Amino acid sequence: MRDTKERISMNHGNGGIYMNKLITSLFLHFFENEQIREQADSAILRVNEGHLAYTTDSFVIDPLFFPGGNIGSLAVCGTLNDLAVSGAKPQYLSAGFIIEEGFKLAHLTRIVKSMAIEAEKAGVRIVTGDTKVVNAGKCDKLFINTSGIGLLEERHLGIGSGQKIKPGDKIIINGPPGEHGMAVMQARKLFAFKTNLKSDCANLYPLIRKILSASDHVHFMRDATRGGIATVLNEVARKCNTGIEIDEMQIPVNEEVKIMCEILGFDPLYIANEGKVIVIVDPDDAIEVVAAMKRTETGRDAAIIGEITSDHPGRVVLITRSGGKRIIDELIGDQLPRIC
Amino acid sequence: MRDTKERISMNHGNGGIYMNKLITSLFLHFFENEQIREQADSAILRVNEGHLAYTTDSFVIDPLFFPGGNIGSLAVCGTLNDLAVSGAKPQYLSAGFIIEEGFKLAHLTRIVKSMAIEAEKAGVRIVTGDTKVVNAGKCDKLFINTSGIGLLEERHLGIGSGQKIKPGDKIIINGPPGEHGMAVMQARKLFAFKTNLKSDCANLYPLIRKILSASDHVHFMRDATRGGIATVLNEVARKCNTGIEIDEMQIPVNEEVKIMCEILGFDPLYIANEGKVIVIVDPDDAIEVVAAMKRTETGRDAAIIGEITSDHPGRVVLITRSGGKRIIDELIGDQLPRIC
Repeated sequence: MRDTKERISMNHGNGGIYMNKLITSLFLHFFENEQIREQADSAILRVNEGHLAYTTDSFVIDPLFFPGGNIGSLAVCGTLNDLAVSGAKPQYLSAGFIIEEGFKLAHLTRIVKSMAIEAEKAGVRIVTGDTKVVNAGKCDKLFINTSGIGLLEERHLGIGSGQKIKPGDKIIINGPPGEHGMAVMQARKLFAFKTNLKSDCANLYPLIRKILSASDHVHFMRDATRGGIATVLNEVARKCNTGIEIDEMQIPVNEEVKIMCEILGFDPLYIANEGKVIVIVDPDDAIEVVAAMKRTETGRDAAIIGEITSDHPGRVVLITRSGGKRIIDELIGDQLPRIC
Repeated sequence: MRDTKERISMNHGNGGIYMNKLITSLFLHFFENEQIREQADSAILRVNEGHLAYTTDSFVIDPLFFPGGNIGSLAVCGTLNDLAVSGAKPQYLSAGFIIEEGFKLAHLTRIVKSMAIEAEKAGVRIVTGDTKVVNAGKCDKLFINTSGIGLLEERHLGIGSGQKIKPGDKIIINGPPGEHGMAVMQARKLFAFKTNLKSDCANLYPLIRKILSASDHVHFMRDATRGGIATVLNEVARKCNTGIEIDEMQIPVNEEVKIMCEILGFDPLYIANEGKVIVIVDPDDAIEVVAAMKRTETGRDAAIIGEITSDHPGRVVLITRSGGKRIIDELIGDQLPRIC
């Protein structure tokens, strides 16, 4: 048996004394709230009549710590964002940990603390959880699953599904794509060069609340995580059988992401983000939405980058800087695994 | 790149074409319902005013297939049971998959199909999901997280917390302990002997509905998974600062579990179950509750096994077959890792 004071041992997952100590001193300590304190098999939540948004996401990112965040802040923000882009106000989270035997308790503590801080900032509660420990070599350090529940007002129904999208709608992004993926690449220390890149990992709900206040004609939102904005736009084009045109000149650029992508042969449009949202709005409201976004921390670089077309349904087309056109295909091969 | 037709490749987790095919042909195909069909970032659920139970559980069982079930049926039943023992009617599940590159698609299909069958039988919907793929060697074949939401009637509030427990209350179990753990041990093929043991993996909601119909004085329920019934009883004794006495003569026995435990040096009271519930009820209702349980498939062998005492608070005491007394301590060392 390893030292259970400094490292996670199999006993931390067996349901007995060590597991109980871990739950009490770590999870209950940092996630403190009336529901989790009960330590029952389920958290009990009071709800009013209406609609809930419900989502889940597992996080397997490598490395666990990266500039701008760690797997814990990511696991909270990622699930909050999936709720927020559905038009919902995030309320409750669950947290499931799969931990490799021998994992440093100090690292787990840092991660759990980050989760608590992000949840607190967002005004959401982590109300139920689970801990499993697997033998050394049977998982890579730590995986976290979070699921989440949000409240959805009647008037925001359908924002996550894309059914309201129509030709002429403007496509907006809140900032330059690719920061998360490139920051994680940097953290893997595979390259000799160094950048100041930070992940854009952030809770987008405050931004999204502003967007929904600025317009009653937000037709779609989706955070552009795995596969980047190219993947979100292709999903929209396919699902709504509509064309999409985006203008390379209008897409915000992070110079370090641009240079790193050029060196490594990546396209920023396909790189994962953890704080970028694609917003599709009625053209009459687009300028007002961008203005509202620019007044927030996560929307400072917001820009209209393109529009929905009736031409070339199912296709995403990029107008290049030189004025040419290039099809932005769906991702086939793998650009960057374990980025989230 | 491995053959993406027969095995899971990194591309099945990248957000692109292969992942979309996997989601459509496997997950949406088997989990078919109006919410998951939307493929939005969140499922949208209509709720009435009241209380919800909310829970999460990750499953890392090894091996994935065992007599009586597989990781898929377990991931559905396990989370249903956590909702049911809180007094709730299970309604919605999420499913998050972490898959090792190279995992056989045929195995994944069998597992997903089992999940769909269990969910269908239970009348619950798997409404939202997530898929991550990690490189070969970075997880052990497949881990599944499920979270779940259930509806909780006002009159069943507090059943999961134990706050209603009082001295004199009777302790009931629905059948012999240890079948799941011993069936999984058998499936690991570490021993020369062979048994007909099957996991007790089952959805306990139908049984629990009968229990709650039979008595308005059910004071506590908990499914006895990791750490077995000894762990549940110790949690109750500690949390409610009450004593517990159980009578070895009254505990139902599975002869094969008994023999296997004797050979391997295990105590069935500490072995994991996936279809056993500890029910604590007012003494006046105990016989009626047992009678109601016996009329169900998962409660045929139900028995009163002990009671809550004001003596020795915090301690679980076993009256042995010979009439002696033995303290049933909390689990310290690890009996059987990765049993759920």
